[in-house]
Parts: sequence; structure tokens; C-alpha cells
Amino acid sequence: MTTSNTGACDAEAAIEADPTVPMIHIRRDFTATAEQLFRAHTDRELYARWVGPAGQSVVVDRWDATQGGAFRFRGDDSDGAEQTFHGCFHTVRPDRIVQTFTWDGMPDDVALETMTFEDLGDGRTRLHATSLCDSFEARDGWLRSGMEVGVNDGYVALDRLLAAGEL
Amino acid sequence: MTTSNTGACDAEAAIEADPTVPMIHIRRDFTATAEQLFRAHTDRELYARWVGPAGQSVVVDRWDATQGGAFRFRGDDSDGAEQTFHGCFHTVRPDRIVQTFTWDGMPDDVALETMTFEDLGDGRTRLHATSLCDSFEARDGWLRSGMEVGVNDGYVALDRLLAAGEL
Repeated sequence: MTTSNTGACDAEAAIEADPTVPMIHIRRDFTATAEQLFRAHTDRELYARWVGPAGQSVVVDRWDATQGGAFRFRGDDSDGAEQTFHGCFHTVRPDRIVQTFTWDGMPDDVALETMTFEDLGDGRTRLHATSLCDSFEARDGWLRSGMEVGVNDGYVALDRLLAAGEL
Repeated sequence: MTTSNTGACDAEAAIEADPTVPMIHIRRDFTATAEQLFRAHTDRELYARWVGPAGQSVVVDRWDATQGGAFRFRGDDSDGAEQTFHGCFHTVRPDRIVQTFTWDGMPDDVALETMTFEDLGDGRTRLHATSLCDSFEARDGWLRSGMEVGVNDGYVALDRLLAAGEL
């Protein structure tokens, strides 16, 4: 146990474009177990407390994080703009989540997302998340959308929940 | 109305590897309306009657072809070998179906499938189906798997259902 293990903010997520396929790779280390990160992605109440950019309140309208289940949620930012998102859960296992994801502003852009949890030892876990799009244009559109703000803010909020012992 | 409109077998499906992304494109014309092709892909009983290779009997264990729904089915071929498949429905609209698809023999290979229906006039409709994989290796594995037999046999069985007026 070191003093870095106090729930202080981890480094920013690495967000990278795959060189070969229209995929985004996200990598982020947490002071958490794989089981805690799995819960953060599958528990309805917890998910709503960390996902998305800071200042956004999330309301989950549909949530069944089991194989063949689905989700829908909306984020309301501070100036009242509402964004909605939906998808379905293809695989939900402790070591792997595969789901679809769409921002309803572009309903025909569907990303296939995969999350895995790598145990780093000493109570640390690396989250690997990928988003597969059907074209490089769509993938690059996501990368230009400012997604890194929501990704990083969300993970910082998750750090805080972990530090507060709420998972 | 021409005499070709008698339910005779259409040409084989065009099955092509995308040159840029790890996707398979399937294109097949039917003597059918878009609405009939939509029903063929969303009605539980109909789907079981045409999908897959000839000689395989299909049992649908789970079926909810609505946005956020899911499916699971098994195909038993004539020598008793059983294959199971599952996925979830991301989008289900009359003009567009987006779903995930996995053969349970390779549970971590997930394809994202999109089907659209192009009205060709004169009671003919072109089915466009794509399967997006997360790597070229996985995509090429599907192409080498003999999938064209199941695809083409299935569409011939669907031709017969259409000719018999069962949709």
C-alpha cells in the first residue's frame, strides 16, 4: 500500500485511434478491483453517478445489464440541453462487457463497445475499452466530438466514488 | 407483373469483403416487398423457417425483435450437431435493423449486423446486409467458415415461403 492509493485522481485516459480498423481504444487505470469496475458499468444507480461530463445529471430510463438486456439514459447539462443514448448488452460477464452504443442525435451511427478489466495487482485495475465504428469517418467524428471530456470527467467521478468507498 | 415473378429462385447472394474496414457486405434481391423482408427478419416463427443451411432445423429459445430486445436460437443439423447463436437488437425500424450476432462456438467474436431494404419497384426488394467485425482476421474467418452455404440456403428457403404466400 502506498500513499498514492488515496483516491487521488489517476492520469488521464489514453484515447487512441486504431491504425488498422475503425476503432477507438481507451485505457485507464483505477485504484479498484476488477469487480468494482464491473459493478460501476452494470449497476444502474452507480453508472448514473459517474458517466459523462462534469455538471451533467444522468437519468437512466431503461437498464438491464445482463446478456440480451438494454439501456437508455439521458444527460442534462447545466444549460438544460438534453442528450439521449441507448444500446443493448450483448455480453455481460465479470471479465468482459460487450454492448452497442448510440447517441440519439445520430441514430444510425452505432458503436460496438467492449470493456475488459486487467488486474494490475496491489488493488489496481486497468480498464480497456474499445469502440468499433462502421467507417473511419464515423470513428474520427467521435474522436472530434469532444468525447474525451466526458470520458475523463466520468472516470474522475468514478475515482471519487471509489475513494469514498461507495462501490 | 412479369412471369419471372413466380417465386423462382433468385440469383445467389453477393457476398463481398469490404476493402477498407473489417466488414462483409451481402446483397440479395427478392420478389418481395420491404415490409415482407422486414417481417422475415423480425417474426419469430417465420425466421425459424428460413434461416441457416438446408437440412437444419432451427429452434428459437429467445426472441424479442424490438429495439433493446434480444434473440437466441439453435440449429440442429441432420447428424445431430447443435450450433447456438445469440445477439441483441439495437435498432428495429421498418427500413433498418441493427443487431449483434455471435456463434457461441466463438463467444468473444461479436459481429454488428445492419440490414436495410431497398425497393426496386415491381414488387422486388434488394436486401443489403453488412457484418462488421473487430478485426480483419475475424472477418476473414467468417468468410472462410462456409457461411455462404447458410446464407444462400436460407434465402432460397425464404424465396419459397414468399412464393407460397406465407409472408
